[in-house]
Amino acid sequence: MNTVVSDQVLVPCDPEVTPSAPPDRKQPHLVRDRELNRIPRDQKNDYTREMSARRREFIQQRTGADLSHVGQYSFDPGILPGNIENFAGIAQVPIGVAGPLLINGEHAQGEFFIPLATTEGTLVCSYNRGMRLLTECGGVRTTVVDDCMQRAPVFQFADARDANLFGAWIKENFANLQREADATTHVGKLRNIDQFAIGPLRYLRFNYTSGDAAGQNMASRATHAACEWIRDHYPGRPDYFLTGNIETDKKHSQMNMLLTRGKRVIAEAVVRRDMLRKYMHIDTTDIVRMREMQFAGAFMAGSANNGAHVANGLAALFIATGQDAANVAECHAAITYTELLPSGDFYWSVTLPSLIVASYGGGTGLATQRQCLGMLGCYGEGKARKLAEICAAVVLAGETSLVGAIVHGDWVTSHERMGRNRP
Amino acid sequence: MNTVVSDQVLVPCDPEVTPSAPPDRKQPHLVRDRELNRIPRDQKNDYTREMSARRREFIQQRTGADLSHVGQYSFDPGILPGNIENFAGIAQVPIGVAGPLLINGEHAQGEFFIPLATTEGTLVCSYNRGMRLLTECGGVRTTVVDDCMQRAPVFQFADARDANLFGAWIKENFANLQREADATTHVGKLRNIDQFAIGPLRYLRFNYTSGDAAGQNMASRATHAACEWIRDHYPGRPDYFLTGNIETDKKHSQMNMLLTRGKRVIAEAVVRRDMLRKYMHIDTTDIVRMREMQFAGAFMAGSANNGAHVANGLAALFIATGQDAANVAECHAAITYTELLPSGDFYWSVTLPSLIVASYGGGTGLATQRQCLGMLGCYGEGKARKLAEICAAVVLAGETSLVGAIVHGDWVTSHERMGRNRP
Amino acid sequence: MNTVVSDQVLVPCDPEVTPSAPPDRKQPHLVRDRELNRIPRDQKNDYTREMSARRREFIQQRTGADLSHVGQYSFDPGILPGNIENFAGIAQVPIGVAGPLLINGEHAQGEFFIPLATTEGTLVCSYNRGMRLLTECGGVRTTVVDDCMQRAPVFQFADARDANLFGAWIKENFANLQREADATTHVGKLRNIDQFAIGPLRYLRFNYTSGDAAGQNMASRATHAACEWIRDHYPGRPDYFLTGNIETDKKHSQMNMLLTRGKRVIAEAVVRRDMLRKYMHIDTTDIVRMREMQFAGAFMAGSANNGAHVANGLAALFIATGQDAANVAECHAAITYTELLPSGDFYWSVTLPSLIVASYGGGTGLATQRQCLGMLGCYGEGKARKLAEICAAVVLAGETSLVGAIVHGDWVTSHERMGRNRP
Amino acid sequence: MNTVVSDQVLVPCDPEVTPSAPPDRKQPHLVRDRELNRIPRDQKNDYTREMSARRREFIQQRTGADLSHVGQYSFDPGILPGNIENFAGIAQVPIGVAGPLLINGEHAQGEFFIPLATTEGTLVCSYNRGMRLLTECGGVRTTVVDDCMQRAPVFQFADARDANLFGAWIKENFANLQREADATTHVGKLRNIDQFAIGPLRYLRFNYTSGDAAGQNMASRATHAACEWIRDHYPGRPDYFLTGNIETDKKHSQMNMLLTRGKRVIAEAVVRRDMLRKYMHIDTTDIVRMREMQFAGAFMAGSANNGAHVANGLAALFIATGQDAANVAECHAAITYTELLPSGDFYWSVTLPSLIVASYGGGTGLATQRQCLGMLGCYGEGKARKLAEICAAVVLAGETSLVGAIVHGDWVTSHERMGRNRP
Repeated sequence: MNTVVSDQVLVPCDPEVTPSAPPDRKQPHLVRDRELNRIPRDQKNDYTREMSARRREFIQQRTGADLSHVGQYSFDPGILPGNIENFAGIAQVPIGVAGPLLINGEHAQGEFFIPLATTEGTLVCSYNRGMRLLTECGGVRTTVVDDCMQRAPVFQFADARDANLFGAWIKENFANLQREADATTHVGKLRNIDQFAIGPLRYLRFNYTSGDAAGQNMASRATHAACEWIRDHYPGRPDYFLTGNIETDKKHSQMNMLLTRGKRVIAEAVVRRDMLRKYMHIDTTDIVRMREMQFAGAFMAGSANNGAHVANGLAALFIATGQDAANVAECHAAITYTELLPSGDFYWSVTLPSLIVASYGGGTGLATQRQCLGMLGCYGEGKARKLAEICAAVVLAGETSLVGAIVHGDWVTSHERMGRNRP
Repeated sequence: MNTVVSDQVLVPCDPEVTPSAPPDRKQPHLVRDRELNRIPRDQKNDYTREMSARRREFIQQRTGADLSHVGQYSFDPGILPGNIENFAGIAQVPIGVAGPLLINGEHAQGEFFIPLATTEGTLVCSYNRGMRLLTECGGVRTTVVDDCMQRAPVFQFADARDANLFGAWIKENFANLQREADATTHVGKLRNIDQFAIGPLRYLRFNYTSGDAAGQNMASRATHAACEWIRDHYPGRPDYFLTGNIETDKKHSQMNMLLTRGKRVIAEAVVRRDMLRKYMHIDTTDIVRMREMQFAGAFMAGSANNGAHVANGLAALFIATGQDAANVAECHAAITYTELLPSGDFYWSVTLPSLIVASYGGGTGLATQRQCLGMLGCYGEGKARKLAEICAAVVLAGETSLVGAIVHGDWVTSHERMGRNRP
Repeated sequence: MNTVVSDQVLVPCDPEVTPSAPPDRKQPHLVRDRELNRIPRDQKNDYTREMSARRREFIQQRTGADLSHVGQYSFDPGILPGNIENFAGIAQVPIGVAGPLLINGEHAQGEFFIPLATTEGTLVCSYNRGMRLLTECGGVRTTVVDDCMQRAPVFQFADARDANLFGAWIKENFANLQREADATTHVGKLRNIDQFAIGPLRYLRFNYTSGDAAGQNMASRATHAACEWIRDHYPGRPDYFLTGNIETDKKHSQMNMLLTRGKRVIAEAVVRRDMLRKYMHIDTTDIVRMREMQFAGAFMAGSANNGAHVANGLAALFIATGQDAANVAECHAAITYTELLPSGDFYWSVTLPSLIVASYGGGTGLATQRQCLGMLGCYGEGKARKLAEICAAVVLAGETSLVGAIVHGDWVTSHERMGRNRP
Repeated sequence: MNTVVSDQVLVPCDPEVTPSAPPDRKQPHLVRDRELNRIPRDQKNDYTREMSARRREFIQQRTGADLSHVGQYSFDPGILPGNIENFAGIAQVPIGVAGPLLINGEHAQGEFFIPLATTEGTLVCSYNRGMRLLTECGGVRTTVVDDCMQRAPVFQFADARDANLFGAWIKENFANLQREADATTHVGKLRNIDQFAIGPLRYLRFNYTSGDAAGQNMASRATHAACEWIRDHYPGRPDYFLTGNIETDKKHSQMNMLLTRGKRVIAEAVVRRDMLRKYMHIDTTDIVRMREMQFAGAFMAGSANNGAHVANGLAALFIATGQDAANVAECHAAITYTELLPSGDFYWSVTLPSLIVASYGGGTGLATQRQCLGMLGCYGEGKARKLAEICAAVVLAGETSLVGAIVHGDWVTSHERMGRNRP
């Protein structure tokens, strides 16, 4: 029986169903259907064009759906293990290019063309507009200020006092835990362990550096090793679950906004008053007013983000470059901080507190994904922070463009009238 | 000059840069570069294989990146206007199929095979396992309990009292606003307007039914029309912005968790104790313990979701079926509610308060996306709620599978040792 | 056996412990202690000076504590039923007076002197300073924009679909529910019922106007009557709890920030640049900078309030005027919205979304409490909104004073050196 | 000119208004009124019975209010400096006693009688009932798991990279900062400094142990000293504000729920099934159901507390014992974690993540306040954690009582009918 590593923990690929199991008397038709409806798999080599075609055929027979386009992929399915199961073809997501965007980062430097995979009209165009504005204003300054990935198990005790003793023991044994965790991985290193107490529980938030990988699997594996060591060495073999849900994997949380998950990246620019007038036909003081209302609205609404549409640019970049699109849930959190400068120019920053990106591993090695990373000079070792900086710069470009459009209300009116046909 | 409709508001596709503009003295090289670096566009017909190829060539020349796979798409780019600008090719995202998943919805009924576009290993396998469990337990019951899309402008007044008078006027003039808004769209209807007061501001949250479209553009257009009517008819022509950021488009918020954005869908199942033992080798009482710790952790962390990994299934389904992947930011919010039944079986529900899906418009009509919708019988008119139900059912399957894996800790240990090579 | 009405639901005053109960074998000493340790009560008339003294004596004997000051109260304990049980004396909380504060409200108009009961040094002084500044600037404009009190029961069904049917039935039967609820109270009126869906549950948030009472008890009683009517008339007699915890009584929540609990009141003022310089020695532009950082910090921290110290003024006013100090939990939520005006003056507003105050009932009729309400002209009928406006104006004064002090950093340094002895 | 220390920063007690200032032409009447309306103060000795009486007279003349009861205090006003300004009398808040409550803490051990100052009927009675239940079940186990007080300044830089360099410098100079901070106080010690990055800002969260004081003033003073040292030694003398609002003083926040403010205390008890039936006539399984619905409701509502009415007990204890009642804003946050035990008994815990209490300083030394601390054996040195444990135990008693009452719905109905007259 083969097993694979999930993003959160390890799960079996196929539940063990003994074929000789007696039919369930209550639902015999389902048992029969089940066999007929079983998606074809080849236990020996499932990652072939043939198996992919057999699955499409199987689906077509059962649903009547034409899957001809889905079957049009240009790579060898043999590269897919570790990325997908029951492979049946591809989604063809259109990519538009935007740029150049001038970035002055610690890792990303120069002008970049950005691949954006999306089906949302205007997105590429809007980001492109922001990139032009920012590039004309001297570019975007980017900085990665923190970088760590988590797994957060929870241990249970008889009461809070026992949990507290355990907490002290964990501190004392950090070196041991580090040794156990680090032994499971080449790229990650256990940096520190945060502790959070609820009743008889102790949540441990293991923080790892993860090199150029996103690091969720690495963090799971390493933390699992550390937890097993704890169980073997702590009196009474305490019960634990590998996650207590406070790393909030694939979920936004205030925890991650505060304590960082993945990269904490900041993009900054000074938007020149003259450029803003030239390209967006508005004044920086208009943006000040807009910002205060946007921010107050976001605060009242309990929003994960006091800016505009961070998720748009990130999702498009993520799909293009083989990042995990589910991470948009976490990555779209952002804090916009702005100032009207005495000069009349406008300082604009976006802080992304939980940006999870990889230049290696995950989907980065697939055919088009790797090529898009190539466009950015971001494939492979030592490139994850560069990619994070590019993401943040792209986000800032998108913010300026959309906010500019919102502020420029009258313009909207007149052009909408002349605009294209609506669906 | 052409214009297009963005998801939030209208933005110009290309900022008007008069070519005869005098060179910026401070950054002459940038001006020169700008012309050289301008991404090729054909003002007449930009959606051709030729233009796509020219852009790839342009990028290749400037970045050295090989874009051969990116150029391998199987459809006519002529279908793309309204979905992408500066089209240069595609992301090929692998699709795995899972299922069958037995759904007992108001709109989705029967067994479904689910296309999941992802690059995250184990995801398809894990969801598949959950689908089998739930199908064996009698399937998933799904219900759409609310359905509306928003745009939320903010109006500014001299003080709170004026804003309050305005609020009363809006209530009185609802029929007029409805007429103005509804005149702009065939599919949407203005349902009601929520009001929120901060200082001198009045935020209006326009709620629309949106038929089978996601409805963000429709809501923007209709609200814009209503706001212009307000400005023309309310004394003093009040200032407004088309968004005050409280609809929190592309952003998670407590507002949307409470008041719904898109569909509010609930998936429910009774997980039988015997089946859980058979497929996941754990007991329902173990899940009770796990759930309490997961929930407490999520609450302490300020998470958007007290469950496990809703975003995973949604992102994969969204990419496959042409939904806007950026919406994962909003859609991943969820409330898991469970009960251990006296029988020992386990009632499990997931409520998705802001699920935004479309069976028409947006990316749904593209080549592979439409085919994947076809697999689900969800393309076109009258299918959006069916798709919403399928999404929720898939999410519940993923929750059971991952929670089962977390609970089954020992199993993890042993199998990991025997497991495959790690990257 | 007597019963009393709690703020949330009804609880028995003394659990029925049959005195003849056989001794608990495991803890015999506790049973014996229990009788000896029983706080004295007079079943006939417990609200006398004599019983109060007997209880102090009882406590003194068991703890050795001197309660001489606690016993120095100036009123007849006969006024206390409905306000306290096991009355043993008083807390003497010092009151400082601040003002005058010029208020231009819809209900509060003119100059007010404010009683602040606190033990926190500088509080009165700091608020006083803000009152002077705002009064000099022309006073505070106050507006009550919403007013309602809630009780939010939860009903449980077999599944979400049944819950949804129930929701529709509730809408149809609103007039009946209104009749049942309103019959239980002279002052309250059921205004509307919000519905929130989670899995098989339906939370109903009953909104009442509550006249001059805070209204929690009224809302409980009325909602209880409505729920009993529901149970008697809805098929299957659905199970419910009188609270599902979403009215978040005595707890801050985003729900209440959005949908209001008690009064939603706004205080506004234009702080003149010259006055700010004169009284606080800072410029309005300094406050702009400070505000942006305060707001960004509050947002990142997930705070209930993006301002400074709303709770200080409210707690002091509440204790002085017989409000429920526990409500500070809910009432301290606030949204500060500001603008730098073209004139250089500074528009400053605070919105209190869940301010719960009463001019009648609760502790308002007690001796000193009623006198302090008298200072404000706020005792009795038709005064609750006036009191709400005064609270908001006081809050705004406190905000200006503290923010002014924070901004004026250098000043702090020098004066601290010359300052008084520190404890 | 005298100055005093506020809870947040230092503010001048009276803004310097030169009496010879020329009358403001626009508001001459206000200038005249201002002098007449000035609250009497004695610059030499303001804390006398005479001055207090003069202020009451002044208020009575201007408002017509009778302040006779307000004037009835039993202590010498000479004890009040540092606790109040413009002292005019007292609020007489009735105190009820509850108990005994058996506590098994690390600091609080034995049976306690609890003074509760409140005007909310039923509160004492309800808490009393819970205390009896918990005492009968063997008492409450309490544990203080963390203890620190904060002040969180914000420093501003040219950009994020400069802020990042600053962050590294702060780490390197921790010993210096510790020296500077600790030199300002006898009781507090700087423990560590958390850093949070937004754009060009660096928020520093200074954590102090604070002995038996609440510690806000101490933390302000010490942090001010450290910040001044930073400004003197860091290149460019960076700008800062003493608070960036992330310690969220007097405000609830997720920050404080996660990272603790004041004491993090846990109260735990095993509620025996038989006792619950005897005293509350309900079963533990009923509470399980109730809890799941309460928790889900609180999560959806975005509440600071997934339990019932923590604020009630805390506010009443705080007023009685001279704690700062404004802190209820922060202190009412709580996480209830429960488990149904295999025995049918019910494990119940409440975690208070930000409980701020003092046994020394603030209002603890005043007449009745000190006597109430005496009842608990909690006045003076080395008693703050004991008091924190008592607070948590009281809170847990209140939770059991109210939840019991909510669950016991039918009982409510019948007794309400026989109940007392309603106001």
